[in-house]
Amino acid sequence: MPQRLDVNDPLFPHAFQALLGMKRETTDEVNDAVRAILDDVRLRGDAAVIDYTTRFDHMTIGADGLTIGADEVDAAVASCPRHLIDSLEVAADRIRAYHARLVPQDMDYTDDTGVRLGARWRPVAAAGIYVPGSQAAYPSSVLMNAVPARVAGVKRIAMVVPTPGGVLNPLVLAAARICGVDEIYRIGGAQAIAALAYGTETVAPVDKIVGPGNAYVAAAKRQVFGTVGIDMIAGPSEILVVADAHNDPRWIAADLMSQAEHDSAAQSILITDDAAYADRVAAAVDELLSRLPRGAIARQSWSENGAIIVTDDLMQTAPLIDSIAPEHLELAVTDPDALAARVSNAGAIFLGRYTPEAIGDYVAGPNHVLPTARSARYSSGLSVLDFMKRSSLIACDENSLRVIGGHAISLAEAEGLGAHALSVAIRLDVSGD
Amino acid sequence: MPQRLDVNDPLFPHAFQALLGMKRETTDEVNDAVRAILDDVRLRGDAAVIDYTTRFDHMTIGADGLTIGADEVDAAVASCPRHLIDSLEVAADRIRAYHARLVPQDMDYTDDTGVRLGARWRPVAAAGIYVPGSQAAYPSSVLMNAVPARVAGVKRIAMVVPTPGGVLNPLVLAAARICGVDEIYRIGGAQAIAALAYGTETVAPVDKIVGPGNAYVAAAKRQVFGTVGIDMIAGPSEILVVADAHNDPRWIAADLMSQAEHDSAAQSILITDDAAYADRVAAAVDELLSRLPRGAIARQSWSENGAIIVTDDLMQTAPLIDSIAPEHLELAVTDPDALAARVSNAGAIFLGRYTPEAIGDYVAGPNHVLPTARSARYSSGLSVLDFMKRSSLIACDENSLRVIGGHAISLAEAEGLGAHALSVAIRLDVSGD
Repeated sequence: MPQRLDVNDPLFPHAFQALLGMKRETTDEVNDAVRAILDDVRLRGDAAVIDYTTRFDHMTIGADGLTIGADEVDAAVASCPRHLIDSLEVAADRIRAYHARLVPQDMDYTDDTGVRLGARWRPVAAAGIYVPGSQAAYPSSVLMNAVPARVAGVKRIAMVVPTPGGVLNPLVLAAARICGVDEIYRIGGAQAIAALAYGTETVAPVDKIVGPGNAYVAAAKRQVFGTVGIDMIAGPSEILVVADAHNDPRWIAADLMSQAEHDSAAQSILITDDAAYADRVAAAVDELLSRLPRGAIARQSWSENGAIIVTDDLMQTAPLIDSIAPEHLELAVTDPDALAARVSNAGAIFLGRYTPEAIGDYVAGPNHVLPTARSARYSSGLSVLDFMKRSSLIACDENSLRVIGGHAISLAEAEGLGAHALSVAIRLDVSGD
Repeated sequence: MPQRLDVNDPLFPHAFQALLGMKRETTDEVNDAVRAILDDVRLRGDAAVIDYTTRFDHMTIGADGLTIGADEVDAAVASCPRHLIDSLEVAADRIRAYHARLVPQDMDYTDDTGVRLGARWRPVAAAGIYVPGSQAAYPSSVLMNAVPARVAGVKRIAMVVPTPGGVLNPLVLAAARICGVDEIYRIGGAQAIAALAYGTETVAPVDKIVGPGNAYVAAAKRQVFGTVGIDMIAGPSEILVVADAHNDPRWIAADLMSQAEHDSAAQSILITDDAAYADRVAAAVDELLSRLPRGAIARQSWSENGAIIVTDDLMQTAPLIDSIAPEHLELAVTDPDALAARVSNAGAIFLGRYTPEAIGDYVAGPNHVLPTARSARYSSGLSVLDFMKRSSLIACDENSLRVIGGHAISLAEAEGLGAHALSVAIRLDVSGD
């Protein structure tokens, strides 16, 4: 059974802090293993990548087998049911439309001192996309990573996806095809991150690596940060559902389990204002767990990491929500907008009783790569902004430099930076030069 | 003398790659030292912070001395020359005006399927600002970090600044006052980063830490990333000046030295199309070095890390510039806009002969905290965006869920995620439930 917390329990603050502090990942020994893999790939290139792929993915490949070619993608696409290709295309179109609205505007203006100022956004030249394999080889993740990169204008997209035992979901390749991603490598883990960051004989290095992965991938991304950019350190998935007693408990149970079924380390939390309703949801979860294909995973997640919090007034829960800073926040209440307006920290907010979180995982349009582990306090879901960077522009002429330059000279001298001061003064003929 | 490279030298590609690969930081042994400090502060709080401050900053303080109070700020402000306060205020106003234009717009719209979608930006609740002490205790850095946080709407800003030997530039406190920053601690190094990330008895934890620092600060920021957000890993400063022979060589020499004087690890590079002009700039640098207050530092930077690249046609240098991905790019050429349009990777671009880099360090308006060490390939200067995060908004009603829900069900089933599929189907009465 999940934890049960009541805000009126004198011990609630303690229990809530313990819930916030729950560690659902262990990365200590992982870091050392990852460091060795990164160093080895940097040193030995393809040979190291092949060794680790043999060891971890239980498959024998040569350097010419690292690449997944167009023929293989053709065959995969041909093997996919037409209705699923259609659904992927609808999803890609909707993700494209949403992300196109997030493309930042350049600016270029001259202010009242005559100084011309601007900001100019450009795409990164090359992006690497990590697509998890095995239990999480999701075609939807390909779309969520590759479409924003395309919308941003990234010219080169290199995708890596491990194929343990040589097995790969053909829909993953179909999704890549739909996004126009044609540079694909059958590698994963820290060795794939290393190949993207440092380059090998086969894989040219990229400028930025995005995409979720397991603890090894997360550790590898953290370690190569600086050599390349990364999006975020993704942890296990989370959902916080705020639901009043007017919801069908089976709907809410399905929503809670839709995160729990991802991973036994996932976390599903319900906040409700009705203890009897909490019981009905818990019962509906139990009933559902016996029928789910991934019921064992979901059951473990729910019993180990799940929580039900009973409170007095759902409209007063914003501080709790902000402390949890959930990846997914579902507001199944009568006035979801009023509650949403009070909330600051959430990766994505699902408003109302007819907006299950899963709709955002596939076809709503916004990204499903979202900040986990309370990082919604300071970070955002993946978007075109992750594939672009901004240069500021400054242009003075002699007149405008004269208007503002004196302040620069004063401050530079106060900071003891003589060349800074001189570089302005010499242009204005106000120095001793 | 700095390196001299000629694009027509057959060995140029090799020499240029070596220039790009130059490591100007060593952090290997630093990482272990930093890890120990972080662990100690997490465990012992204020006591550990005080111990490290005693050891590294050579000063004895108690827990009540960690905070710099309003009285101390008052006294510092009173001791500053009025014209410098004025210059700081002009700078703050200009930084505020520029960054206000970078505040992202929220969006909220309903698409043609009836699905309501949005994106909502909110400030982080608490930001920590690291201000370097000793040789780099710059009031301008306070403005560049704190003003964007204020413009973003951050409610709590906690500033840390080490005061080695008890010494602090009063202008740093004056700058904090101008930005309305009144929570200030006299601590620095990894111990200050730890205090901001984990909290101590005196320092409440923040959500995001920004600001440049030395190798220890950079390593500490990297290690606490995930517990809190960070802006970037700032390395030594860099400038790339592209200048034709029509520039006064003394102007260009001053610009090159304005980065070199920051730090012996700083890097100044000149690209010009005239070998004789390159000689004139080099001679002007030599003449200047003998007169600069920080000439010894600048001389070491220039001789160890500086470079002059002679090329045929400055308008063809964009690929070189993009490979260098400089923090500061100065285009002292006849048509700077035409060249800038070809460049993708640069933290800030200074257009034309009358725009020395130093004007951007103080009063132009854009930020002077910019990506170093080639990270302009994938990242941007500090801005309001670093102090905000975006939540996506999704709202379906029964009708719009029916329009797009079928695709979500299909894809969820194809991914083997039964609860995902069910959470949509159950609301549409299309499941067996």
